[in-house]
Amino acid sequence: MEKPLITLTTDFGLKDPYTAAMKGVILSICRNADIVDLSHNIEPYSIFNCAKYLSESIPYFPESSVHVIVVDPGVGSQRKPVAVFMHNRYFVCPDNGVLTMLIDRYKNYRAFEITNRKYCMPEISNTFHGRDIFAPAAAHLASGLNIKKLGSELTELFILNIKNPVAGNNGTVTGEIVYIDNFGNCISNICKSMTGKIIKIEINNTVITRIAENYSKLEKGIPGVLAGSSGYLEVVFNMESAHDLLNIKKGDKLVIYTSG
Amino acid sequence: MEKPLITLTTDFGLKDPYTAAMKGVILSICRNADIVDLSHNIEPYSIFNCAKYLSESIPYFPESSVHVIVVDPGVGSQRKPVAVFMHNRYFVCPDNGVLTMLIDRYKNYRAFEITNRKYCMPEISNTFHGRDIFAPAAAHLASGLNIKKLGSELTELFILNIKNPVAGNNGTVTGEIVYIDNFGNCISNICKSMTGKIIKIEINNTVITRIAENYSKLEKGIPGVLAGSSGYLEVVFNMESAHDLLNIKKGDKLVIYTSG
Amino acid sequence: MEKPLITLTTDFGLKDPYTAAMKGVILSICRNADIVDLSHNIEPYSIFNCAKYLSESIPYFPESSVHVIVVDPGVGSQRKPVAVFMHNRYFVCPDNGVLTMLIDRYKNYRAFEITNRKYCMPEISNTFHGRDIFAPAAAHLASGLNIKKLGSELTELFILNIKNPVAGNNGTVTGEIVYIDNFGNCISNICKSMTGKIIKIEINNTVITRIAENYSKLEKGIPGVLAGSSGYLEVVFNMESAHDLLNIKKGDKLVIYTSG
Repeated sequence: MEKPLITLTTDFGLKDPYTAAMKGVILSICRNADIVDLSHNIEPYSIFNCAKYLSESIPYFPESSVHVIVVDPGVGSQRKPVAVFMHNRYFVCPDNGVLTMLIDRYKNYRAFEITNRKYCMPEISNTFHGRDIFAPAAAHLASGLNIKKLGSELTELFILNIKNPVAGNNGTVTGEIVYIDNFGNCISNICKSMTGKIIKIEINNTVITRIAENYSKLEKGIPGVLAGSSGYLEVVFNMESAHDLLNIKKGDKLVIYTSG
Repeated sequence: MEKPLITLTTDFGLKDPYTAAMKGVILSICRNADIVDLSHNIEPYSIFNCAKYLSESIPYFPESSVHVIVVDPGVGSQRKPVAVFMHNRYFVCPDNGVLTMLIDRYKNYRAFEITNRKYCMPEISNTFHGRDIFAPAAAHLASGLNIKKLGSELTELFILNIKNPVAGNNGTVTGEIVYIDNFGNCISNICKSMTGKIIKIEINNTVITRIAENYSKLEKGIPGVLAGSSGYLEVVFNMESAHDLLNIKKGDKLVIYTSG
Repeated sequence: MEKPLITLTTDFGLKDPYTAAMKGVILSICRNADIVDLSHNIEPYSIFNCAKYLSESIPYFPESSVHVIVVDPGVGSQRKPVAVFMHNRYFVCPDNGVLTMLIDRYKNYRAFEITNRKYCMPEISNTFHGRDIFAPAAAHLASGLNIKKLGSELTELFILNIKNPVAGNNGTVTGEIVYIDNFGNCISNICKSMTGKIIKIEINNTVITRIAENYSKLEKGIPGVLAGSSGYLEVVFNMESAHDLLNIKKGDKLVIYTSG
C-alpha cells in the first residue's frame, strides 16, 4: 500500500510552535504519514495568495494525497471547517476561498463540513483550528477514513471573486500585477494564451518592448516580459528584481499590446 | 514496526549548511528515519524561547519519537550534552535549560550525559555538537539503542529560572509579555486558568476592555485580549499586529483586573 | 530495500510555489521517495554559495542518495541540465559550477546531459527546469533508473574559478571572507590546516589576537578567531555578530600571522 501523504500550506511563518503542533497531531493519529511542507510563508491572511499558490503546486501531486491548508483569518467565526474531495485528492481547510482556483480548474468536488468531534482534538480552541480540527481530520483521511464520516455534505463552497483581465479594442489586454515572487519578478493575471503576438507592454509609465524567452536572454538592466512557468506574463530582469528596479507593486495596472 | 521519527529544533536559520549536515549524519546512521523539521528559526541563543516552543509542540508528538534540540550558545564549554527519556519520548540536547517547561509538566525523567564516543562522530568539533554529538546520538536512539549506553546517568538537569505572574490584592494578576508571534500577537505568561473573569487589562499606558473569543470578533483597529491556543492571555488585533500598533515589546508588564 | 532519498537545495525562498511543484512532480513519479529539504535560502543566483553549501553538507549523506540542486540563473540558456554520479551519490543540477567543491574533493565522476524527454515533464518551460527536468530526472534515478538512460555522457563539467588564499613571507597567509552565517560569524577561505600556530589576524583595520577554541570562551565584546566546524577560520564574537559589530563584509581581506 502507498504510504499516506499529507502536505501543509499555512501563513504561520517559521518561528512559532503552530506548525510543529499540527505535525505532532498528525503523526499521533497516522504514524506512517509522510508530511511534506509546501509553504508556511503565505502572506499572512492572504486567501488570494494562498489560492494562487495552491493552483500552481497541487496539480503536480499524486492522487490520494491529502492537502491541509491553514490561511484562516476567520478562525473561530462562522466560516466552516471543510474536507473536500476533488480530482481524486483531499483538501482540509477553512471554507474561505482558498480552493477557488483549483475549483475553477477541476470543476467537480464533494465538500463536507467537519463537524464530527470524533475526528477532532478532544478540546477545540477558538483560535487554532489547524491543530484542533484540520490536522486530525487530515490524519484520519490519510489513514483511510471515508470523508463522509466527517460531517454533512455541503452543496457549495465559498469562492473568491477574482478580477479577470479585460480585452480591449485593437488587440490590447489590460490586467494587473497579482504577485511578486522571491526574485522580484512581477507576475500578472494575464495568461499567455489570452493574447496574440505581443508587441509591447505598458506598466506605470514604463514601456517594455523586449519579449524574452527566458531570463538570461535579457541584457543587464533591460526589463523584459516573458511567460512564466505557469503561463502568466511577468515583468522581469536578468538576475535583478523588477519589483525593486521599476518600483512595481501588487495591483499595478498592465496593458499588453498585441498584433491582433 | 513503526518507522523511526526524529524531529529537529534549532536556531540555525535556513541558509547555512548546519541543519543539512545534521540530516545527513542522521540518515547515514538510521536510513529509515523520518526527519521532521520543527523550527530552525528559534531566536538565536534564546533558551527561553526554545523551552517555550517545545512545551507547546512536543506534547502533541507520539510516543517513542526522538527530539533533537540545538539552541546551544555554550557549545564546547562545560555544559553537558545529554539524552533524556521523559514521558516515553527521547530528547537529545545541551543541558542548558531547553527542557525546563517540559520537565515542569512531566516531572519524571531519566537523563544521561552523552560521553560514549562510539555513538558520536569520529571527530568532535568544538563548535558544532549538533552534527558531531546530538545528531548521531539521536539516530542511534531512533535505531533502538538503549539510552543507558550513551553515558552515565545524571541526577538532575539544569533548569531555567522562570518568572511567574504575581497575584495581587483585589483580583489583579501582574505578568509580562514573553513572546511575540508571527502575526504580532503579544503573548503573556499569564495562563487563563490563573485568573477569574477578566474585566480589563493594562499594558504600557493602554487599557484594554475588549475580551474576545477569537480574532475575528474584534472590530478593525480595536485591541483585545484572548486566551491563545496554549491557554496564555495575549494582546491581539483582528488581522493586524499588536506588536506594531501598540508598540508592545517582550518584557512589557501586563496587569489583569478580574472580578475576583 | 532502502527507501529512495532525494534532497533539495535551491535559491527559491519559501513563499513561492516553485519548491512545492517540484515536490509534487517527484512524488508523482516516485511515491515512496523521502524528500529532505536542505535549503531553499541559498543567496539568489549565487553559484559559489551553493557550491560551498553542498561541500559542507552532502558528504554527510548516505550512499545512493539523490541530490537535486537548483540555483540556476542561466535557466533556458545554453548551460546544460546534467545528472552526475560521484562518490556513489547522484546529483541532478544545471552544469554551472554548483558541484565545483565536491568535484575538488571526490575527483572522479561520470556526468550525463539530461536530454531524454521520456524522463522529463511532457512540456518543458523555458524558465523552470527545476520542475520540468531536474525533479523528474531525480525521481527516476531514485526509482532505480540507470543514469546512462538520461542522455549522452559528458567528458567534463563546468568548474568555478575559486580564489585560494596566498601564503606570504614570514608565515603570513592572506585570504578573504567568503561567507557570513546566520549568527554573523564571518567565515574565511583559509583552512586551519593551511596555517601554523596563529599569532594574530588583521581584517580591515582591526587586529585580533584572541584565538579561541569555541564561542563561549570569548568575553563579551571581544572578537576572536576560531576554526569553524568545517575547518575554515572565522572571525566571531560570543553570542554577537562579527558582521554587525566589526562591519565585516563578504570579500573583505584577511591576513593571518603565524609563528612560522
